[in-house]
Amino acid sequence: MEFTLDQIAAILNGKVEGDGSLKVRRIDKIQEGQPGGISFLANDKYESHFYETNATAVIVSEQFKASKPFSCQIIRVKNAYTGFTRLLEAYANFSKASQLGIEEPSYFDASSQQGEEGYRAAFSYVGKNCIIGKGVKIHANAYIGNNVKIGDNTIIHAGAKICNDSIIGNNCEIHPGAVIGSDGFGFAPQENGSYKPIPQIGNVIIEDHVSIGANSTIDCATMGSTLIKKGAKIDNLVQIAHNVIIGEHTVIASQTGISGSTEIGNHCVIAGQVGLVGHIKIADKTTIGAKTGITRSIENPGKTIFGYMGLEIKDFLKSYSIFKNLPALQDRIKELEKKQ
Amino acid sequence: MEFTLDQIAAILNGKVEGDGSLKVRRIDKIQEGQPGGISFLANDKYESHFYETNATAVIVSEQFKASKPFSCQIIRVKNAYTGFTRLLEAYANFSKASQLGIEEPSYFDASSQQGEEGYRAAFSYVGKNCIIGKGVKIHANAYIGNNVKIGDNTIIHAGAKICNDSIIGNNCEIHPGAVIGSDGFGFAPQENGSYKPIPQIGNVIIEDHVSIGANSTIDCATMGSTLIKKGAKIDNLVQIAHNVIIGEHTVIASQTGISGSTEIGNHCVIAGQVGLVGHIKIADKTTIGAKTGITRSIENPGKTIFGYMGLEIKDFLKSYSIFKNLPALQDRIKELEKKQ
Amino acid sequence: MEFTLDQIAAILNGKVEGDGSLKVRRIDKIQEGQPGGISFLANDKYESHFYETNATAVIVSEQFKASKPFSCQIIRVKNAYTGFTRLLEAYANFSKASQLGIEEPSYFDASSQQGEEGYRAAFSYVGKNCIIGKGVKIHANAYIGNNVKIGDNTIIHAGAKICNDSIIGNNCEIHPGAVIGSDGFGFAPQENGSYKPIPQIGNVIIEDHVSIGANSTIDCATMGSTLIKKGAKIDNLVQIAHNVIIGEHTVIASQTGISGSTEIGNHCVIAGQVGLVGHIKIADKTTIGAKTGITRSIENPGKTIFGYMGLEIKDFLKSYSIFKNLPALQDRIKELEKKQ
Repeated sequence: MEFTLDQIAAILNGKVEGDGSLKVRRIDKIQEGQPGGISFLANDKYESHFYETNATAVIVSEQFKASKPFSCQIIRVKNAYTGFTRLLEAYANFSKASQLGIEEPSYFDASSQQGEEGYRAAFSYVGKNCIIGKGVKIHANAYIGNNVKIGDNTIIHAGAKICNDSIIGNNCEIHPGAVIGSDGFGFAPQENGSYKPIPQIGNVIIEDHVSIGANSTIDCATMGSTLIKKGAKIDNLVQIAHNVIIGEHTVIASQTGISGSTEIGNHCVIAGQVGLVGHIKIADKTTIGAKTGITRSIENPGKTIFGYMGLEIKDFLKSYSIFKNLPALQDRIKELEKKQ
Repeated sequence: MEFTLDQIAAILNGKVEGDGSLKVRRIDKIQEGQPGGISFLANDKYESHFYETNATAVIVSEQFKASKPFSCQIIRVKNAYTGFTRLLEAYANFSKASQLGIEEPSYFDASSQQGEEGYRAAFSYVGKNCIIGKGVKIHANAYIGNNVKIGDNTIIHAGAKICNDSIIGNNCEIHPGAVIGSDGFGFAPQENGSYKPIPQIGNVIIEDHVSIGANSTIDCATMGSTLIKKGAKIDNLVQIAHNVIIGEHTVIASQTGISGSTEIGNHCVIAGQVGLVGHIKIADKTTIGAKTGITRSIENPGKTIFGYMGLEIKDFLKSYSIFKNLPALQDRIKELEKKQ
Repeated sequence: MEFTLDQIAAILNGKVEGDGSLKVRRIDKIQEGQPGGISFLANDKYESHFYETNATAVIVSEQFKASKPFSCQIIRVKNAYTGFTRLLEAYANFSKASQLGIEEPSYFDASSQQGEEGYRAAFSYVGKNCIIGKGVKIHANAYIGNNVKIGDNTIIHAGAKICNDSIIGNNCEIHPGAVIGSDGFGFAPQENGSYKPIPQIGNVIIEDHVSIGANSTIDCATMGSTLIKKGAKIDNLVQIAHNVIIGEHTVIASQTGISGSTEIGNHCVIAGQVGLVGHIKIADKTTIGAKTGITRSIENPGKTIFGYMGLEIKDFLKSYSIFKNLPALQDRIKELEKKQ
């Protein structure tokens, strides 16, 4: 996409100084600006880059006064940072809105229905009895099984798989390769030492404004529902097992795994590579540090937990600082023993 | 799918009390039962829910006597739990059996063959010289390369990738997005500090009754075969490197990684986020706790191993309980030093 | 693929002893050799297998003299190991080269272009304004978004997803199910406790000779580029967050995660299940042991780092050896206390 500086100034309610007919097609950091790019200057700290940038244009604030000569065009707006984020959003929306209609071949079972203003890419698959809302984008090679419901304005990215009976809310994003509603990992041990699969007949419910990262996996419930509540944001390669509940506006970073039937509260922040055992409850507003293992419920809200087996962070760090010095500690004991 | 209570009673060899013409289309937990759902009561602990459930019907055992009024229909069977699991299996089988035939467009090389009673969804791909058994279901966007063999009644879920030369047994399930037989991670360091790929020309062999979880990856052998023995159950996002051997009826939970050429025995249980180095052997019936790192072979069967560098669990927990109290231990040493 | 021993001898510049018209179709380890397979003997240690192998043929070095009777054919070459690796490469190249042309249905937007000698499998998808080099293979169900550039001789394996604006160099391999250029995980906390997505408008740049493993995920930059430099080799299920830089000829093993804006130097070796926090720098030639957590920059090149919170390996191992003996250490303190 290419825009003239005049067009951008119009979107931002700003004023071009320089040649408004020049075109840009990229948003650059000011220190990496190249011809064809537009940058912004909102922080005095970066002002020196302004005089050296090769960006075609830079968005600046109303009151900005250059103290040296410069070669870029400028777009002057009320607040450069706000203007810039507005530009980012416009760019992102434009990019999403540009996909409309149905590419062929795509597969859409006659028993399913999709609302208007939608997009279905080539090689997207929609099974039986699905109800798909308005403005939903289904990208290439995405799979939607049977009896799936998807709310308005949700985006199913390339190669995401939404298995049978899943229910997804409005304004969600399911990123490429994510798997929603695959079988829970449930096997009954038999007397001869083998395992028999326990049928997994529940589903996954994802509420509004949820984001699920690339190649993450969310298993369906054995019975009932695995539930991701509204506003939760889940990063790439995260595993969420059967019958887990993730609270509202909880954020989970990459490669974390949550075992079966565990319930995470609202407004929690869970860092990367964390593991939680099954059948526990984590209180609201809990923060869990990277790589932490959580083996029991956290009952009081607002704690910060860290370490291999999940201690409160200050306790962990105290113990760990001594762990690093264990050789010295051992020497002190030797010394004491000698002196007896 | 909708069934009348009379139909379900017939499947379960039971008897309806109430209106047998009512229909259900879902299996609910008794405490979450809603109209249109069927639940079961097998454990006295849950009896109070029986009187409050909104489920249309509840499966109960022959000898059950209600002690209060209730509003649901009941289906009386010999043993409520057995009856319920039979219903689950019937439901799951029905669900799987309903997919038959070939949806178009699908790609199937003329040199390959597939047995009868199979299913190939739209956008499924089967390359050259494949031999695919009877009753095999290949879901949408699944990929099967060249020279692949798949046994009877195996299910290849949506978007799973089975690379060249893989051999998969009977009654397996390869869940969505799993990758079987991608190149092993082998590179020869060169004198200039770069790496040259070592051709990975082996394959993956998966025996009967194996389950591979969503988005898990199993690399082909450098030479010979990476081998997953019969009855092994592997969860989501697990990494199995080239030339690994997984024993019979071994269970591996999510996000565990097994490095090249390691051999896992039979009837092992490996929890989530475990890592094993390459070229080691794990004895039969070993249990490995979550997040454990295993750096050498485990020679005696039946041990339980745990902790960052894989100790026997009781040793790890003893050391860990002191780790948590290291600040107090350090204080005791200070006290001793003072008193000298 | 089947070759006669005479054909193989011609490729290897060697000489058959035995029946050169026999055919082989597989490369076997000598200790697992079966009819139809060809093996090699380069190490005296394995000589005993030579007399017992069932392989049809074995590649041996010029000076090899059998000390017992044997039943296989032999192909005598200057150096058995070099000959064997040449055979491996010939086999792998043959295998790759055999795919050419366009299978239908595939989707290729009219605004995009692809060089000659390429391959596009059925159900591969190429969006708008893409420039794809010579000899590029795009396998089944692979997805390439809009404005993507791919250099010569790069392979995009089955079901890999290359999102909008990505730039991939020459001679790269993107393995099955990998996701390149999905949205970075960036959300601005709002006053009401919810999160608003920050538009992610940067891209991913992958230089020449890079390998990305199966189901790995590499996020696009918020602005600018996530950058994987030439010769880097990345294993399966690795997470690389937005704005990360991976140095030249750096190797990263499976299930490692690298948080946003972190920069890894050249010639580093990072083992499996490692986690790095965001916004740090790792010096050139750093080695990081498996499962290590890295919480700050490593400034001096050539170190080996290990342990839950990233110590130098000898320091970690010293402390850890005492950790294992903490109960005994505690007993010594008790003893000292008693004796006071």
